[in-house]
Amino acid sequence: MVKLRDGARRIRPDTLVTEEPLEIRLGGRPLTVTMRTPGDDFDLAAGFLVSEGVVRRTEEIVSIRYCAGATDDGSNTYNVLDVALAPGVALPETSLQRNFYTTSSCGVCGKASLDAVRTVANWPVRDDPAALGPQLLTALPDRLRAAQRVFDRTGGLHASGLFGLDGALRCVREDVGRHNAVDKVVGWALRSGRLPLSGSVLVVSGRASFELVQKAVMAGIPVLAAVSAPSSLAVDLAAESGLTLVGFLRGSSMNVYTGAHRLGLSEARA
Amino acid sequence: MVKLRDGARRIRPDTLVTEEPLEIRLGGRPLTVTMRTPGDDFDLAAGFLVSEGVVRRTEEIVSIRYCAGATDDGSNTYNVLDVALAPGVALPETSLQRNFYTTSSCGVCGKASLDAVRTVANWPVRDDPAALGPQLLTALPDRLRAAQRVFDRTGGLHASGLFGLDGALRCVREDVGRHNAVDKVVGWALRSGRLPLSGSVLVVSGRASFELVQKAVMAGIPVLAAVSAPSSLAVDLAAESGLTLVGFLRGSSMNVYTGAHRLGLSEARA
Repeated sequence: MVKLRDGARRIRPDTLVTEEPLEIRLGGRPLTVTMRTPGDDFDLAAGFLVSEGVVRRTEEIVSIRYCAGATDDGSNTYNVLDVALAPGVALPETSLQRNFYTTSSCGVCGKASLDAVRTVANWPVRDDPAALGPQLLTALPDRLRAAQRVFDRTGGLHASGLFGLDGALRCVREDVGRHNAVDKVVGWALRSGRLPLSGSVLVVSGRASFELVQKAVMAGIPVLAAVSAPSSLAVDLAAESGLTLVGFLRGSSMNVYTGAHRLGLSEARA
Repeated sequence: MVKLRDGARRIRPDTLVTEEPLEIRLGGRPLTVTMRTPGDDFDLAAGFLVSEGVVRRTEEIVSIRYCAGATDDGSNTYNVLDVALAPGVALPETSLQRNFYTTSSCGVCGKASLDAVRTVANWPVRDDPAALGPQLLTALPDRLRAAQRVFDRTGGLHASGLFGLDGALRCVREDVGRHNAVDKVVGWALRSGRLPLSGSVLVVSGRASFELVQKAVMAGIPVLAAVSAPSSLAVDLAAESGLTLVGFLRGSSMNVYTGAHRLGLSEARA
């Protein structure tokens, strides 16, 4: 790589964010390809299946394994994995008729028409007895950044952090795709028997899109806080689902778009 | 929305980036759903088809129109459009067997296996007679930002700008999804008979992912410059395709990952 800094030219190696395709199979059948940062692949696959509404309990996944000899030359099998579902767990409707593909920033894929875009939540988004103070919330982005192992080196990874209502970090995952980072957290929760994630806050390093709100709702997370802007559809879905959606969480500032009551705030004009 | 600034609470309306699903049909048959910012939808559809390798010349698309009465209640038909291809233009293989879905940040969708992820370029990436000076390149992000109409208000839109080798802006498009912003530029070029886009530079406001490099290659764009980091697979594909890939284009600095010769730079150590 040639690095130009104020007219000076230097040749140096660069640390790049790794992006590789992961093919997820369900019972041996190709389901989806996602462009992801390798690492926590089993969490990613499990979280993807939660987001898609396929599974919601730990025991519904019997096993996840990398496929041996999945490629023609048999060289790299860490980019293909197979999930075995427990007997009686229904395959997603989509898997029988079509396959879907996700890229590095892609949430749910394979839907052909508008009606199929929304998934149905497994649990209602619940109110927690303890309110979460805005001050506690403002401390979370720094805690998330501190927990990121790679971000500062490459500048290209999205992070997703799950916090308790006491502000303690429970899980942090990174990925080149923001959706994958969230799926990895949700998959970790599924695999460790923690779903639904009531009494928790999900903090994401980037924007809050429709898909991220959908993933939070599918996992039963009551509060989603993003460092950047939400989209209109994200706000609509959050309002509809009873989720607390916070955007532009920076320093001591934030915008609370929906569910302000969970932060002890009134939405009425003073 | 409740806005918190240094402890003070204010209730105020907020300008949100609009994100809505767009269903693209091909000859009446649903092909894909993408989460996009409404506007330049015809460009988006045309560019998507270029990126997918379905079309490469203006006349291969006969018409694009919004579908009347496409939804059950007939209320909003601006989220469904139908593309009619010229006789003899082959439908994408995927459209007959499966449907694919793209989200706000999603490039190519519907691929079931790793082999199908890469599309085949319509044109080789060519060298241009005139070299592009690094100094000229450093001026482009500011020109892109100046041309953005919405970004400063919402903070949530990605931009994609096409420049000539003289640094003049030819086309700028915005979207909640970085991939859509590029597809809109490419679609504009297809519809105005400008493909392949040799002698041009594509500047994107965010990261450079695999999909963005692929879209540049499919449109014959020789130089892709991103304000943020590229991924490893983006660099691999750029090297393989002969594309010049620049990342972290900020102020007078940049990292040139591949194709440094086009900027008049040697990749050898001094």
